[in-house]
Amino acid sequence: MAQVLSGKEVAAALNERIAAEVEELKAQGVEPTLAILRVGERADDLSYERGATKRADSVGVAVKKVVLPEDTDRATLLAEIEKLNADDSVHGVLMFRPLPNRDDDEAARNALAPEKDIDGITDGSMVGVFANTKQGFAPCTAQACIEILDHYGIDPKGKRVTIIGRSLVIGRPVAMMLMHRHATITICHTRTIDIPSITKEADIVLAAAGVMESVDANYFKPGQIVIDVGINWNEEKQKLCGDVKFDEVEPIVDAITPVPGGVGSVTTSVLISHVVEAAKRTLA
Amino acid sequence: MAQVLSGKEVAAALNERIAAEVEELKAQGVEPTLAILRVGERADDLSYERGATKRADSVGVAVKKVVLPEDTDRATLLAEIEKLNADDSVHGVLMFRPLPNRDDDEAARNALAPEKDIDGITDGSMVGVFANTKQGFAPCTAQACIEILDHYGIDPKGKRVTIIGRSLVIGRPVAMMLMHRHATITICHTRTIDIPSITKEADIVLAAAGVMESVDANYFKPGQIVIDVGINWNEEKQKLCGDVKFDEVEPIVDAITPVPGGVGSVTTSVLISHVVEAAKRTLA
Repeated sequence: MAQVLSGKEVAAALNERIAAEVEELKAQGVEPTLAILRVGERADDLSYERGATKRADSVGVAVKKVVLPEDTDRATLLAEIEKLNADDSVHGVLMFRPLPNRDDDEAARNALAPEKDIDGITDGSMVGVFANTKQGFAPCTAQACIEILDHYGIDPKGKRVTIIGRSLVIGRPVAMMLMHRHATITICHTRTIDIPSITKEADIVLAAAGVMESVDANYFKPGQIVIDVGINWNEEKQKLCGDVKFDEVEPIVDAITPVPGGVGSVTTSVLISHVVEAAKRTLA
Repeated sequence: MAQVLSGKEVAAALNERIAAEVEELKAQGVEPTLAILRVGERADDLSYERGATKRADSVGVAVKKVVLPEDTDRATLLAEIEKLNADDSVHGVLMFRPLPNRDDDEAARNALAPEKDIDGITDGSMVGVFANTKQGFAPCTAQACIEILDHYGIDPKGKRVTIIGRSLVIGRPVAMMLMHRHATITICHTRTIDIPSITKEADIVLAAAGVMESVDANYFKPGQIVIDVGINWNEEKQKLCGDVKFDEVEPIVDAITPVPGGVGSVTTSVLISHVVEAAKRTLA
């Protein structure tokens, strides 16, 4: 029986810390403020927006919404981003992507000021993660993995950590972040031969393959810690499932995050914590 | 007896390719031009400058030198960089660092236009390496390792590659570049426990520890390929030595780069190839 690493528990602790920091900032005359920039009315965006707004409200972070019609042209969108960059009352900007017009994606992404890039989408944030500087912010899901390890007192230093997946949103950044914390990292991907033989060498396995239940008992040995980043809708079982076959793997390993209730439960809190951190940095 | 992977041979082949590309560019009215920006008269800089100038001359790349006094202030330096950025006749800029005034280093580094950053020092180039885009250029030493593998027909795809060293100049970028070529990478560093047990799992070991002859027979098994990035002056032996104990390791492995005559022999050619590539990109 593995320890189940509850993301909800991590989020609760994080929210408590954030609320205290918001109080401190307000005492210094700063009201941490999240701007949400949405183009169009995509259901996914609206759902994430509701979650982020609720979380922000619960810890005292203000939310400012900028909603543009789906057919907004690039110049108008970039002008709105510039306005948010220049607005000192806004500390972090969540911009939903992909944009309805995907051709605008690249320009919009890099128009955002890295110091307000709480979701780690700009080149500036990427350099921050790669070079280990305080420029910008890490992608929220990558940071959520780190928060879970921290909360449960799992220090990656000197540990072998194998990451399955090399995406720019999770695999690559989380690998760098774990390396900066002195883990010895290995990155597996679709071209890796015999991934199970490699994951078995690790102390910590982080699954971010993006393929539902593709990581089974075969990949693990006793003593390991498993962080499952996958969030997939299982049509057959009519429920959310991870990249890891939880039922098979849980009896083998020492600790594992569930899906749902694992990494995904922490990301919104991380997003809000980045707003608060961005606000703190304006005081430094 | 291992195959000795001669960097000189790689450089010769690269130079031939570059010279042909320069001819083509000239036929299209473009004269590939390298600008060397040097502040002060540091012996290391002068030595590298001589090598780069000689290599450029030999393949028909023009060199423009901008030499500033050691006590140049930041504003003057940044103005010179701006001038080189704006000068359409200059395709690549080699700026020697560290600068005499190290406080100027960060500002000067990022003042350079990524499209002329042939030594991969800007944030733009770092993002290019991390995200695998054509933005900027990879650090020359990292690219030199790739050139050696390419020249000898060693495809990293599906191979396990272990890198010793996580620096921003070599360990991290070369790891990303090898991963983009579908290697399964592991990065070891000073906090890694039992590095020899990890390097022994690899098909290719890239030593960039920066510590002379610190990687001995213990780290290897038959069949492996070794790329030694280290260049250290051995006071006792009065010669250049790598990070790998060549005499011990060469009899064990399948192939190994020597020091001198290995990776270090390829970097100047890579630098010049980047100038040519930068010139080609202006036509695209």
